[in-house]
Amino acid sequence: MITRYTFGNPVETYAVPQKPEACGKLLPFFERSEDGLTYSMKLNKDEIVYGLGEQIRGINKRGWTYTSFCADNPHHEEGTHSLYGAHNFLVFDREKPFGVFFDHPGEMTFDIGYSDLDTIKITARYPDTDIYIIDGETPYGIVRAFRKLIGQSYIPPLFGFGFQQSRWGYRCKEDVDRVLEAYSAYGLPLDSVCLDIDYMEDYKDFTVNSGRFPDFEDYVASLKKENIHLIPIIDAGVKIEEGYDVYEEGRENGYFCKKQDGSDFVAGVWPGRTHFPDFLNPDVRKWFGEKYYRLTEAGIEGFWNDMNEPAMFYSDEGLEKAKQQIQAVFSKEIDIEGFFALGGLMNSISNSPADYASFYHEFDGIRARHDTVHNLFGYNMTKAAAEAFAAKYPDRRLLLYSRASYIGAHRYGGIWTGDNMSWWSHLLLNIKMMPSLNMCGFLYSGADLGGFGADTSGDLLLRWLQFGIFTPLMRDHSAIGTLLQEPYRFGNIDAFRRTLQLRYRLMGYIYSEFMKAALEDECLFRPLAFDYPEDTFAKRVEDQLMFGESLMLAPVYEQNARGRYVYLPEDMLFVKFISLEEAENERFVEYLEDGTPYIAKPMPAGHHYIDVALDETHLFVRPGKLLPLLRPANTTAELDFTAPEVIAYPHGQKELAYRYYTDDGVTKDYTEASHFKNIVFTVK
Amino acid sequence: MITRYTFGNPVETYAVPQKPEACGKLLPFFERSEDGLTYSMKLNKDEIVYGLGEQIRGINKRGWTYTSFCADNPHHEEGTHSLYGAHNFLVFDREKPFGVFFDHPGEMTFDIGYSDLDTIKITARYPDTDIYIIDGETPYGIVRAFRKLIGQSYIPPLFGFGFQQSRWGYRCKEDVDRVLEAYSAYGLPLDSVCLDIDYMEDYKDFTVNSGRFPDFEDYVASLKKENIHLIPIIDAGVKIEEGYDVYEEGRENGYFCKKQDGSDFVAGVWPGRTHFPDFLNPDVRKWFGEKYYRLTEAGIEGFWNDMNEPAMFYSDEGLEKAKQQIQAVFSKEIDIEGFFALGGLMNSISNSPADYASFYHEFDGIRARHDTVHNLFGYNMTKAAAEAFAAKYPDRRLLLYSRASYIGAHRYGGIWTGDNMSWWSHLLLNIKMMPSLNMCGFLYSGADLGGFGADTSGDLLLRWLQFGIFTPLMRDHSAIGTLLQEPYRFGNIDAFRRTLQLRYRLMGYIYSEFMKAALEDECLFRPLAFDYPEDTFAKRVEDQLMFGESLMLAPVYEQNARGRYVYLPEDMLFVKFISLEEAENERFVEYLEDGTPYIAKPMPAGHHYIDVALDETHLFVRPGKLLPLLRPANTTAELDFTAPEVIAYPHGQKELAYRYYTDDGVTKDYTEASHFKNIVFTVK
Repeated sequence: MITRYTFGNPVETYAVPQKPEACGKLLPFFERSEDGLTYSMKLNKDEIVYGLGEQIRGINKRGWTYTSFCADNPHHEEGTHSLYGAHNFLVFDREKPFGVFFDHPGEMTFDIGYSDLDTIKITARYPDTDIYIIDGETPYGIVRAFRKLIGQSYIPPLFGFGFQQSRWGYRCKEDVDRVLEAYSAYGLPLDSVCLDIDYMEDYKDFTVNSGRFPDFEDYVASLKKENIHLIPIIDAGVKIEEGYDVYEEGRENGYFCKKQDGSDFVAGVWPGRTHFPDFLNPDVRKWFGEKYYRLTEAGIEGFWNDMNEPAMFYSDEGLEKAKQQIQAVFSKEIDIEGFFALGGLMNSISNSPADYASFYHEFDGIRARHDTVHNLFGYNMTKAAAEAFAAKYPDRRLLLYSRASYIGAHRYGGIWTGDNMSWWSHLLLNIKMMPSLNMCGFLYSGADLGGFGADTSGDLLLRWLQFGIFTPLMRDHSAIGTLLQEPYRFGNIDAFRRTLQLRYRLMGYIYSEFMKAALEDECLFRPLAFDYPEDTFAKRVEDQLMFGESLMLAPVYEQNARGRYVYLPEDMLFVKFISLEEAENERFVEYLEDGTPYIAKPMPAGHHYIDVALDETHLFVRPGKLLPLLRPANTTAELDFTAPEVIAYPHGQKELAYRYYTDDGVTKDYTEASHFKNIVFTVK
Repeated sequence: MITRYTFGNPVETYAVPQKPEACGKLLPFFERSEDGLTYSMKLNKDEIVYGLGEQIRGINKRGWTYTSFCADNPHHEEGTHSLYGAHNFLVFDREKPFGVFFDHPGEMTFDIGYSDLDTIKITARYPDTDIYIIDGETPYGIVRAFRKLIGQSYIPPLFGFGFQQSRWGYRCKEDVDRVLEAYSAYGLPLDSVCLDIDYMEDYKDFTVNSGRFPDFEDYVASLKKENIHLIPIIDAGVKIEEGYDVYEEGRENGYFCKKQDGSDFVAGVWPGRTHFPDFLNPDVRKWFGEKYYRLTEAGIEGFWNDMNEPAMFYSDEGLEKAKQQIQAVFSKEIDIEGFFALGGLMNSISNSPADYASFYHEFDGIRARHDTVHNLFGYNMTKAAAEAFAAKYPDRRLLLYSRASYIGAHRYGGIWTGDNMSWWSHLLLNIKMMPSLNMCGFLYSGADLGGFGADTSGDLLLRWLQFGIFTPLMRDHSAIGTLLQEPYRFGNIDAFRRTLQLRYRLMGYIYSEFMKAALEDECLFRPLAFDYPEDTFAKRVEDQLMFGESLMLAPVYEQNARGRYVYLPEDMLFVKFISLEEAENERFVEYLEDGTPYIAKPMPAGHHYIDVALDETHLFVRPGKLLPLLRPANTTAELDFTAPEVIAYPHGQKELAYRYYTDDGVTKDYTEASHFKNIVFTVK
């Protein structure tokens, strides 16, 4: 059961499409402070707290203070409080479990047993909020009820499940062509190349630099013949430049966020000085969203929305203030305090709270200071694009994913998890974050595989891809100035090829499981405890995931590791894909129809150590379940979904069935009965 | 066998007290580039590379590029290349293992299978170097031979093994008294309180602020009656202040590092503008070392030497240059490049390569630019103190530990591992670093328990202390501005008390094992593979350690964990110290003589999952071994070492023996036969 409690006059966020009536009763479980800003509750000793979507640390969120305030912060460290999303949904796994969603678009903090091991203390900046309490029998039941409440998750086109190669640094057609040639030469599958900010003219949204990308439309068309998609980036800030029509229109129509004095707010971002469209206003969304047509009409079918927390390198006011303060420090003989003040000044310029409190939104007849609705900004940029796509292409799916998000945005697009680093700990963070994202509705998501910032290494990229083949958004992305990170840069090409091909082999399963999860409000990635609620050990497992109905994943995420410990809540089939050379050394090898070797070893429930060499990818099949596998192809368009072969783990059953989903990958008739087929496997 | 290869004219570092003759033969194993700057070697697929002492990442150093250049860098992240020490010793675990020590005081980089998975490439800034190749039967045999080569490790007084409470922020006598009162009130054992920079007058070395610490000598004496020691910090830079005698003497005698033009080099550090004593010069060491007598004569028996990489917030020249550049950026309308240049400028001021190349040392008749001998600076500051102590107190041990170090410094003092963070990953880093430090001679060492920077939490501190009770230097230290971090700040006082008391219970074992390790060139902490060289799985284990002759450690280092996997290379006795409450729930509890409950469960060799609740400390006793335990006391001075009780794991043996070391904890007659006793345990 879901009950809504309303305090004050909350802003309408549209996180919940059909809001139940507010109940007017006392809020249960939590002690609410008199000022309405804090909510406290005792936690039981071993109670697990799930949720919060895009955040650092574990699946169990206990032991840290998390802040929901969409942040452009590339330092995803243990001490970080905010990432790019604000996902205020929690589930408490206690004798009588319950979930809570704070529909509150301003800053909130969640001190979950950090200051006090056994207390959760939630703090909002403003008392105005809608709170939903979700009762249920099990944590997973509560998650499903919540997912139903917030509405169906975004479904991308099939090509969005193909591998995407990206880099901040692909500047021109030649750069893209070189990547595509290498992919082709090395026989690596690929569906898309992402274009980061350099494809634009001076970082102006909806422009294409015609010097770097001459005949863009023809180029897009020629790539499409090869089933390759270009995915351009769109940034939140609109460059201030006389004659640039987006700027001119926005200014004339009053579509930009305004300062207290009514003038357009200025933020320094990639294009230099920019204005922020007021995405919270439906008219602005319609206007901005329709600008995407310039690119869709040029053949583009996918976008990534960036810098929409919104990120702000500086404001005019902030920069001027810092300048004065810095000059004041320099004007006298510098001492240690002065020196450290300098560093502090520089660090305080970007994304400053003062700047976020200095501009306004106007929508639904209200005027809201930005910081009070901060977490809705990126969400509504995504909504702007999605609404425009739905209007012009009602039957067609377009690819769309965003950096900033709020619950509600999951209906309009996916998210990637932002500017991580080429760190092993960020591979583990990726693993731990996926189920939390799913709980909050974000099914189409993934991390920058190999790491965005810092230099990657061949072993890190390979291990990360071995997990990345399971994330719906599978993208290798890296920052300018870092080591080139395409999978063909590190030798060991056979291992990279086998890994990427496995993604495409698994596509029938990944797509089926994704579609069923989206249509039926399920999680694609789940903590083990969701599937085995009676298993007290499963609750402890933080580095293994259930993936769809047939699989459990236990990725290797440590450097130099040659295996790992794994816990099986029930008997499972350990499947490991190995090289042809290795197959010659193994006694019990099986082969897929195309000769691909693998090991399939039933393992009893309990604890095991499994060997997994650097070039091997493994997974576990649950008892009585099937894993359909396709013949790999270079792109999703070339995959033959019709008659997958299967790896089966009968475990005593005579007949195994799998509910298999296929469609054309483009249209939206998701629930058409013919898309669902039953694959049956009979033990001979 | 150890062979020395000399190239060019290396500076005498005194890392090796008695250098074997250089052999004149071709350097084996490595391919040396013609310019003498790089050394390359192929690595076998699963070859493990040990060593490098104070560095990030694993016990197996493969997969990263490490730089030996003593650095004041509080960001101990995966992307970090240098910490505070420079320990150029490596061991290659291959069919015919060998070790190598690059005795080279300038910057060196070790790309150990990072750029290329199967190649190590070592690069020095200068070709002049002494290289020692150590052959042996096993990696541990090689380590012992190396340890013998570099001379006996520093041995602290017994009180140095007691718990130390520290914080940058204890400003005055009252602050210290409050800490001591709390320790006493909560019944927590403690031997020392460290004084960070605020005890000084304006951060001037060898001064005591008489306003904050009136009657310092009396205060030290009164604490000593309670067996409590104050451990003041000494920084490398000498404040420039007319009339400050250390400054005046240093300037008059030319004892400070000089610029090219012969003037004294100026660095901005805590006191503001300072000069760096030229510690590489024996006359300067003698002069500076004797200054410590001011404090030893006031009753002080221990010191920590800090900021001796040397850390440099800015130089006069660097600051002026940055100022001009910043003003140039501000003088025109700022753009994005200009804005990012500002941040870059600020970040380039501290510890800049240009500054390290702008001053000089004079010693042994040579003049050396600082950067060419950078890694000897902190080492020789430690040596300055140690030589002065040895001159005045030839029979007495004083406590001394340093932040910066080079191999050779291990003979003069210990090291702590610098400014870590209150991060769980830094607890794991602490665990992985201990054996590497031991390999390089640094036995007396430890991390800032609970973490220096960032806010700790009660669970992190408790888990960290549970490992910290095994590190010879056991200190809780934290930075100003972070959460107060004394163990009594977090409730759960019984768990903290039991943990600290266990340190004192273990003191007979820790002290014996430390002394034997120091006197016999052993490692106190060892990778499992050192003790079980034939066990191929043991080579993979990165998060368990052998500790002395009787114990294996497998610490819990993950938040919210209630246990962990552990690998036993042979049968072992799992010993877990539990609370009295918990003892009531357990079926098989044993009790120490004083009623302390514990569980002792024999476990067979192989893989296990063990339960370890947050307030429990566990260890493993090896078969046929004894663990002596003392009655806890409030200080080491009050411990009764005479007749320890034992936990024994006979494993079929009738009689078990343990070589037990005791002495007065102060004098230096280490090898006196009466210090070694044989504890015999007979199975009834």
